[in-house]
Amino acid sequence: MNTTSPVDCKSWPQLQHHAESWREARLKDLFANDVARSIQFVAEGAGLRYDYSRQLMGAITLRLLANLATERGLPEWRDALLSGEPINSSEKRAAWHTALRAGKDSPPEVLQTLDRMKGLVSRIRSEKKFKRVVNLGTGGSDLGPRLLADALGDSTLDVRFAASVDPHDLGRALEGAEPQSTLFIVVSKTFTTQETMANAAAARRWGAKAFYAVASNVEEAKKFGASEILPMWDWVGGRFSVWSAVGLAAACAIGFEKFEQFLAGGRELDLHFASAGIEKNLPALMALIGVWNTSFLGRATHAVLPYSNALRLLPAYLQQLEMESNGKRVDRAGNEVTYSTGPVLWGAEGTPSQHSFHQLLHQGTGVVPCDFIDIASNDVLSANLRAQADALAFGSEDGQYPGSRPSSIVFLEKLDARNLGRLLALYEHKVFVQGIIWNLNSFDQPGVELGKVLAKKILSGGK
Amino acid sequence: MNTTSPVDCKSWPQLQHHAESWREARLKDLFANDVARSIQFVAEGAGLRYDYSRQLMGAITLRLLANLATERGLPEWRDALLSGEPINSSEKRAAWHTALRAGKDSPPEVLQTLDRMKGLVSRIRSEKKFKRVVNLGTGGSDLGPRLLADALGDSTLDVRFAASVDPHDLGRALEGAEPQSTLFIVVSKTFTTQETMANAAAARRWGAKAFYAVASNVEEAKKFGASEILPMWDWVGGRFSVWSAVGLAAACAIGFEKFEQFLAGGRELDLHFASAGIEKNLPALMALIGVWNTSFLGRATHAVLPYSNALRLLPAYLQQLEMESNGKRVDRAGNEVTYSTGPVLWGAEGTPSQHSFHQLLHQGTGVVPCDFIDIASNDVLSANLRAQADALAFGSEDGQYPGSRPSSIVFLEKLDARNLGRLLALYEHKVFVQGIIWNLNSFDQPGVELGKVLAKKILSGGK
Repeated sequence: MNTTSPVDCKSWPQLQHHAESWREARLKDLFANDVARSIQFVAEGAGLRYDYSRQLMGAITLRLLANLATERGLPEWRDALLSGEPINSSEKRAAWHTALRAGKDSPPEVLQTLDRMKGLVSRIRSEKKFKRVVNLGTGGSDLGPRLLADALGDSTLDVRFAASVDPHDLGRALEGAEPQSTLFIVVSKTFTTQETMANAAAARRWGAKAFYAVASNVEEAKKFGASEILPMWDWVGGRFSVWSAVGLAAACAIGFEKFEQFLAGGRELDLHFASAGIEKNLPALMALIGVWNTSFLGRATHAVLPYSNALRLLPAYLQQLEMESNGKRVDRAGNEVTYSTGPVLWGAEGTPSQHSFHQLLHQGTGVVPCDFIDIASNDVLSANLRAQADALAFGSEDGQYPGSRPSSIVFLEKLDARNLGRLLALYEHKVFVQGIIWNLNSFDQPGVELGKVLAKKILSGGK
Repeated sequence: MNTTSPVDCKSWPQLQHHAESWREARLKDLFANDVARSIQFVAEGAGLRYDYSRQLMGAITLRLLANLATERGLPEWRDALLSGEPINSSEKRAAWHTALRAGKDSPPEVLQTLDRMKGLVSRIRSEKKFKRVVNLGTGGSDLGPRLLADALGDSTLDVRFAASVDPHDLGRALEGAEPQSTLFIVVSKTFTTQETMANAAAARRWGAKAFYAVASNVEEAKKFGASEILPMWDWVGGRFSVWSAVGLAAACAIGFEKFEQFLAGGRELDLHFASAGIEKNLPALMALIGVWNTSFLGRATHAVLPYSNALRLLPAYLQQLEMESNGKRVDRAGNEVTYSTGPVLWGAEGTPSQHSFHQLLHQGTGVVPCDFIDIASNDVLSANLRAQADALAFGSEDGQYPGSRPSSIVFLEKLDARNLGRLLALYEHKVFVQGIIWNLNSFDQPGVELGKVLAKKILSGGK
């Protein structure tokens, strides 16, 4: 498969040249000159709608970007991803998170694990033995289940999360809890993660008796005394693992039925991704537009603005997904890249964001491409979202608002487990496609090791 | 006072030229060649320590930046700020938030209001009439008190916040609450803010009886039926108002004694800011280093990484403070600027951030200057923080980590109300100084109006 540099593709210099003609383009004019724009630059798939008409691009841009994707071998890479080939080349592993949500097509160990989860979750939620469930994990063992529980949790159980080595974090998670009615789920692939094991030890000191583990190091989990041990597989990366047993705390919070709908939503997006042509393929479009903004128009950041209180943790989730995957400067061939890769992803829940940093979005000296997430079921939120997107795009007559600031809108009909599954899978595949374009391995994280080594050295008095 | 363009200052082109010599500089070499660097590039004041030795700069840089501050008239502007002159020129108002924390030097109406707050807070916390206090406000009427309550709240009262027009937000704040034991504090200068008034109306429909108001529109607050109305003054901007009656919910959460310590900490920083020379002045240094990174070295973003679970909301607070203040492209004279102003501020709590986006900080193609916030009282957190700062600065021998990625460390001896007051005042004055350098009015927010107008139009079926 193609692991050459993207700058050697025919379409790369074409896009560089093409970008020149977009430096002074005005979105207002583009809409005025093309009445079909707001229909033409919209794609639908897997129940989601993606409106990219407010991006600084035209039909030729799209064609060139699609050419780039083809030249980069996207179809072949996509097939390799979806069939579980070891595309995580540095670690010689697959990145087969799609197998976690493939329904009856999932591998037997996935189906068995889902079955065990179902049994555990329905017992935990129906028996009243546990009033509190506390997830001890960090990074990929924290952000996904935390997002799901926060977005869709009901009042059956009080499910909380502790991710930091700061004892204050666990302290909050234990507020008002009693050891005999609290279940801890310790989530760590190696069962050696500093934060997680420190919190697990502190929980034991607090008097906790009930521990489940989600781990691949079964030995250590047994030694720790976990009464249930669910598997983690080396073919699932941490930041893609919410669909696995890592989602156990989330399933406790939302119920297993909703967790299955979440998986089903992800699966629908996978099927769309697997089959749709590039110019109609939501994650591919999203990825290519991101590459356009980052590598050709020079935008350093990307904002995600969910207009939904339930999705307030989405930006934090996506920060890991995108920046840990594509925040890299060395390509698959080991060479330093000569183009900009993953931008800084940031954002917050709207409407509160409007009263915080939108000033800069509208009138700052830098341009920040935005993804607005629109839940169609709330008129006031949708109107506010639309107003922001329009103000960014079209500005004001008096020039106080410059306009021509690009954004896309992702529409969800309503906020439920299925749509959340679709949405997260959308961003997962977007990240994958960008990695293919930029010639990055999106599935390792070599940049986090040095800090761990140095911290140990400092703690042992080494310096 | 100086409202000319900074590019007309003698030191501006000097700094531009000087920046060229820093493009290839390596922090490793700087430390190797100057054993005093880690002592020399540290400043102390108001009980805080600021270590900027890991910034890409030298003694000459500092001198040129200090010259720029002098040329920009920083001392005169600082005096104007602190004496309450109408430096918010577009709105013809003072930005006199320092008068809110001036102790016996505060204006009589401030002292009276603090007295009323003290009475209300001690009554609310000692009587057991209210179990829940819910703050209804958004932007500056939300982020500050939310941060304080989250960082320092005790278990006396359950204090919550709703800021969005999404009903789900208020729903969360009311979980488990009863109307007869819930006090609502409605915080809105005009008492017309869309989100806040929608939530206040919903609270009333829910059966709420007890409403306090913090407002300058006393008429509307009375009409609404608030039983206590505390003032907001037009000489305090929303994002600088946590020190005022806007902090009432926070004071309920942390107790009035701690709220007074918070004010006292802010005051200490004000006195330091008022008297220290530019090269020893913490907020001035922080501001100038930010200008150096943004306007001369071309960095588009700035990360704030508090290694403290108690400070997990600090980045969200600072996003408003910095980006609403200096996310502007038109200067005080009404001219479009030709240099980069306020960067995108983002960040999250460490250590969890290490397992999320630090990959990009270490190995991304863009460079992100960071502020690490170190609470000296926790060794493990401090060691992790130091390890990250060192890995960013010095990289690795094998070149996998490029190094020379700048950061500063702000040290707090412990996390308490006084230090939090110092820290927030530090960033406030940093923002002010940057506004002076960039010739911006940091105290208005013209960029938020158009969205409001368009949202109304869309809701009324206008388009």
